[in-house]
Amino acid sequence: MYRAPVEDIAFTLKQVAGLKPALDAGTFGDLGEDLVDAILAEAGRFASEEVAPLYKIGDAHGAVLKDAAVTTPPGWKELYRRWIDGGWNALSGPEEFGGQGLPTMLGVAALEMWNSAAMAFGIGPTLTMGAVEALDKHASEALKQKYLAKLVSGEWMGTMNLTEPQAGSDLAALRSRAEPVGDGTYRIFGQKIFITYGEHDFTDNIVHMVLARLPDAPAGTRGISLFLVPKFFVNDDGSLGGRNDVFCSGLEHKLGIHASPTCTMIYGDGFQGAAPGAIGWLIGEENKGLACMFTMMNNARLAVGMQGVAVAETATQKAIAYANERRQGKASDYSGSGMAPIVHHPDVQRNLLTMKALTQIARSISYSCAHAIDRARVGEGEAAATWRDRANLLTPLAKAFSTDVGVEVASLGVQVHGGMGFIEETGAAALYRDARIAPIYEGTNGIQAIDLVARKLPLGGGEHVHRYIGELKAVADAVRTSNIDGFGRTADNLDRSLSDLDEATRFLQKLTADGKIDAAMAGATPYLRLISLAAGGAYLAQGGLADRGRIALCRFFAENLLGETRALKERVIDGAESLAAAGKALISA
Amino acid sequence: MYRAPVEDIAFTLKQVAGLKPALDAGTFGDLGEDLVDAILAEAGRFASEEVAPLYKIGDAHGAVLKDAAVTTPPGWKELYRRWIDGGWNALSGPEEFGGQGLPTMLGVAALEMWNSAAMAFGIGPTLTMGAVEALDKHASEALKQKYLAKLVSGEWMGTMNLTEPQAGSDLAALRSRAEPVGDGTYRIFGQKIFITYGEHDFTDNIVHMVLARLPDAPAGTRGISLFLVPKFFVNDDGSLGGRNDVFCSGLEHKLGIHASPTCTMIYGDGFQGAAPGAIGWLIGEENKGLACMFTMMNNARLAVGMQGVAVAETATQKAIAYANERRQGKASDYSGSGMAPIVHHPDVQRNLLTMKALTQIARSISYSCAHAIDRARVGEGEAAATWRDRANLLTPLAKAFSTDVGVEVASLGVQVHGGMGFIEETGAAALYRDARIAPIYEGTNGIQAIDLVARKLPLGGGEHVHRYIGELKAVADAVRTSNIDGFGRTADNLDRSLSDLDEATRFLQKLTADGKIDAAMAGATPYLRLISLAAGGAYLAQGGLADRGRIALCRFFAENLLGETRALKERVIDGAESLAAAGKALISA
Repeated sequence: MYRAPVEDIAFTLKQVAGLKPALDAGTFGDLGEDLVDAILAEAGRFASEEVAPLYKIGDAHGAVLKDAAVTTPPGWKELYRRWIDGGWNALSGPEEFGGQGLPTMLGVAALEMWNSAAMAFGIGPTLTMGAVEALDKHASEALKQKYLAKLVSGEWMGTMNLTEPQAGSDLAALRSRAEPVGDGTYRIFGQKIFITYGEHDFTDNIVHMVLARLPDAPAGTRGISLFLVPKFFVNDDGSLGGRNDVFCSGLEHKLGIHASPTCTMIYGDGFQGAAPGAIGWLIGEENKGLACMFTMMNNARLAVGMQGVAVAETATQKAIAYANERRQGKASDYSGSGMAPIVHHPDVQRNLLTMKALTQIARSISYSCAHAIDRARVGEGEAAATWRDRANLLTPLAKAFSTDVGVEVASLGVQVHGGMGFIEETGAAALYRDARIAPIYEGTNGIQAIDLVARKLPLGGGEHVHRYIGELKAVADAVRTSNIDGFGRTADNLDRSLSDLDEATRFLQKLTADGKIDAAMAGATPYLRLISLAAGGAYLAQGGLADRGRIALCRFFAENLLGETRALKERVIDGAESLAAAGKALISA
Repeated sequence: MYRAPVEDIAFTLKQVAGLKPALDAGTFGDLGEDLVDAILAEAGRFASEEVAPLYKIGDAHGAVLKDAAVTTPPGWKELYRRWIDGGWNALSGPEEFGGQGLPTMLGVAALEMWNSAAMAFGIGPTLTMGAVEALDKHASEALKQKYLAKLVSGEWMGTMNLTEPQAGSDLAALRSRAEPVGDGTYRIFGQKIFITYGEHDFTDNIVHMVLARLPDAPAGTRGISLFLVPKFFVNDDGSLGGRNDVFCSGLEHKLGIHASPTCTMIYGDGFQGAAPGAIGWLIGEENKGLACMFTMMNNARLAVGMQGVAVAETATQKAIAYANERRQGKASDYSGSGMAPIVHHPDVQRNLLTMKALTQIARSISYSCAHAIDRARVGEGEAAATWRDRANLLTPLAKAFSTDVGVEVASLGVQVHGGMGFIEETGAAALYRDARIAPIYEGTNGIQAIDLVARKLPLGGGEHVHRYIGELKAVADAVRTSNIDGFGRTADNLDRSLSDLDEATRFLQKLTADGKIDAAMAGATPYLRLISLAAGGAYLAQGGLADRGRIALCRFFAENLLGETRALKERVIDGAESLAAAGKALISA
C-alpha cells in the first residue's frame, strides 16, 4: 500500500526545485518552511490513509452509467466530500474566492500524492482547477461571482470539453456550434467525447467549459469560442435552478483509471424534453476560445505530468516492498537462512534503481516547472518573463517525460513481481494499466515534443534554453569541485550529456530557422527525452550535493542511464533522412 | 484485424535465418520451397480467418471455473478441434507417433501466426508440444505408446507443472512429493500454481508433467523427479478410465490472455472421494527430473519468444492501419483534401518504423534460433555440436529480447492510437495487456540474461559467441562492399555496434572467469539487449542485401536505433560498481 514519501517530496521541492531559497528570500510573503512541512505531512496522511484504501474498489467497480446518471464506486463520493472538507481543492485557488493562494509547487506536490493513491481520483479535481483558472483569468465579473467560489471550494466540479470524434490533437476540425440567443447567452449544440468526469455524483452541479463555433466564425482554430455550460442553472441567490440541455450518453470502457468516468457529452439534443440547445455563457472574447483554453491546458499538462511521477512512485514502492519480501535463490551478500530476498540480486537491483532514479528525475523536472510558474506569478518585469519562459520550456518535459517514465516504471514494477505481477489482485498490473493514459491525454507526448521543438526552443530569441543548459552545467561543475569520491564519474558523464544536449539543441534550432520543419519534427521525441535525461542528471546531482545520502543513486544514474543521451543526440542529428526515406513505405496507396 | 504476414515470414525464414540454403543443400531431405510456402500460406489463412475472429470474445469472456471444471470462451473449443483437424498440432511432432516431423522453423513460424491471432490460444499447444518432447526423449516405451500419438495429434493436451507458491525462478525450493506405490507408479501430493491450461474443455484428457520429490531425494534441484499424471487414467485399449486425484482449485484473474486458464492444481487431496494421492508415472530417472524439464523448457522459451514477435506484429499492423485512417492536422507531403492521415507526420512515422524494425529483428533472432535447433537435430558430430551451441546461445535472446519487444511495441501501438488506444474496444490496449506476461513466464527475462552470461558465453570454451559475432561482422562487410547508396551509414554503425558487443562480451567473460559473478550479473540485462540489437542490425542488413525493398528500414534502424549499443556497453562495463553501491540502500533493515 502507498505511503506518501513526504520527506522525498519536501527535499525535492526545497533543495532541488528552488523552494528553499525562495522561502528564505521571502518570495512567497510570509509562507515559511513550517507551514510547507505541515501541509505536506497532512496531504501525505490523507493520501495514504484516506485515498489509497479506496483504490482497489475504484478499479474493480469503476464508474457506472444508468439513465444519464453516473454512479462512482462505493465510498468515492464520501471520499471526495472529506477531501474538499479538508480544504484540499482550494489549496492553490485564488484567495478572493476562498482559495488559500498557496504556491503551485505545493499544489502539484499534493496532486502527486492524490494521484499516487488513486490516479482516477486525482484527475477529477485537476479539471476543476483548470476551470477555476480559465474563469479567473477570462470570465466576466458576473460569471466569476456566480461560479468561482464553489469551484474553488470543490462544492462543484469543472470539466474541459475539447475533443470531438474528428477533432483531437487538431482542434481546427472542431464542429460544435453556438448560436447567440441575444441576452448574452448562447445555445450550444454538438457532441464531445473523452470528457473526464463529464457526469458523476460527487457534486450537485457540474460546470462545463465547452469549445464551440459561432455561426459567423472563421474556419480553423481562429474561429473557436469558449463557453461556460452548467449542468444545472444557477439562480441569482446561488441556489440551483432547472436542468440544462446537456447529458452524458455513454461511458468509455477503458484500460485503466476505471473509477474516472470518461463521458460522451451531448449538447443541445433536447434532453428530457428541453427546448434544444444547451444554454452557455461566453468566456473571454468571441473566437478567442483557444487562447483561454490554453491557459488551462498548460497547467493541466503539468498536472498530468504529476500523474506520471505519481504512478512511478507507487510502482517503485510496491516493487521494493515485494523484492524485500519475496525469496528466491541465493545471493552472495545474503547471510540469512533459506533463500535470499530477491532484492539482493543485482539484476533486480538494477530494475529497482532504474525505477527510483527515473521517478526522482521526473519529480524534479515537474517541481522545477511548478517553481517557474510560481516565480513568474509573483515576479515582475524581465525576471517574471524569464520565469515564464522557463515554465513554458519545462511544461512539455514535465508532461511527456514524466508520463513516459510512469509507463516504463510501472512496466518494470510488474516485471519485479514476476508471475504475481500479472495477477490483478497484486496491484502492480493495475498501475501498468492506469499509467498508459497519461502519455496520451492533454496533448499526446508526440504533440509535447513538437511543442518543445517548434515553440519552446525559440523562446528568448533562442537563448532561453541555452541559459537553462548553462545552469545545469554549473551543477556539473559544482560536482567536480566538490571532490566527493562517491560521485564517481558523475561530473564527466553529466558534462558529456550536456554537450550532447547543447549540440542537439543548436542543430534543431538551425533546422527550424532554415524552415526544415519535417526534419526538426523527426527529432522532436528523442530530443525531449535527451533534454529530460540531461536535466535529470543535474537535478539528481544537485540533490546529492545537498544530501550525501542521495549521492549513490545520482552516481548510479550517471554511470548507468545517462549514456543514453548520446544515442538520442545521434537520432536527432542523423536520424531524419532515413526516417523520411523509410516512412514513405508506411503510407497506404 | 490481423492478416498473417506470410511473405515477410517466408522471407525471414529463407533469406535471413538460413532455410533457403539448407533446403537447396537438401539438409531437410526432400522438403522443398513449394511445400514450405504452401504450409505457411495455409497457416496464415487459418490464423487470420479462423483464430483471429475469436480473439475478442476470448478476451472479454475469459475462461470460467465452476465445480473444478473450466469452460473456455464460446467458440474456442470448436476452434481448437478445427485446428487439430487441420493437423497443426502435429506439424513438427515425431513421425513415429503420427507427427509430420517438419523443421522447428516451420513450427515456430506457424506458432507466431497463432499467437498473433490470439496469444491465449497459441500458448496452450505450446505446452502440449513440450510434453511431447519430454515423453519422446525421456519416457519409457510403454508410456510413449499410451500417450504420445494422442498428444502429437492434439486429441489430448499436455501441461507443465513446475511452479509452487514458494518455488518459481528457484525450483530448489520445490516441495511437492511423490511416494512410490511399488508397481512402478507413485502417489503425488502437492499444490502447483500458474499452470497454463491446467484444466479446460478442449480435450477429453489432459496429461500433466509434474515435478515432485521422492521421499529420500537430496535437497535442492538434484532431488527433483518428473512424473506423468493424467487427468483420466488410460486403459490398455486406449479408452479412458477413472478420474485421477488431481483437480483445479482456482483460476487466476489476470491482466491479459484471459482465455487461457491459469490454474492452481491440487494433487493428492482426495478429490471427489478418491483415495488421496494422484497416480503418476516416472519420466526418465529418479532425481533427474529437472534435466528432463529443461529439454522442454528450452523450446518453450523459444515458443514464448514467438509470442513477443507475434504480439509485436499484430500491434504494428493495427497501428499502421489506424495511422492511415485517422486524420489530424496538416502534413507537408500530403496534398489531398482535408486533414492528413497521421501516418504522414514524422513523429508518428518514427513510432511505426521503430515498431516495424524491432518486430523484424525479434523475428530474425527467433527464426535463427529455430534454424540452429533444426541443424543440430539433422547434423552430425562437431557440426551438430556447434549448431547446438548456437541454439543455446540464441535461446535467451529469442525469449527475452522478443518479449521485451512485444511489450515495447504494444505500448507504442497504444500511443499511435491516441485516446482510442486506451479504449478497450479498439484492441490496442488488449495487446498491451497480453504482451506483459511473456517477459515473465518460462523464466523471467532477468533469468534469461543471467543464463546468457553465466552459461552461454562460456560455450565452446568461450569462442562460440565470438564466432557468431564474426558472422555478423561478415554481414557488415558485405554491406560495405555492396556499395549500395541506400544503406547510408549502415556498415559503419553496424561495425561500431559489433565492436561494442565484442568489448562487452570479453569484459563479461573475464569477469566470470575471475569469479566476479555479481559484477557480471549486474551487466546481464543490458548485455542481452546489446547483443540482440547488434545481431538484429546484421539480420536487417542481410535482408536488405537479399531484397532492395528492405534496405530503407535497415538504414532507419542503423541510423536511429543501433546507437543504443554504446550506452548498453557502458552500462555493462562501467555500471556494476555504482549499482552495487546504490543497491544496498534498497534492502530493508
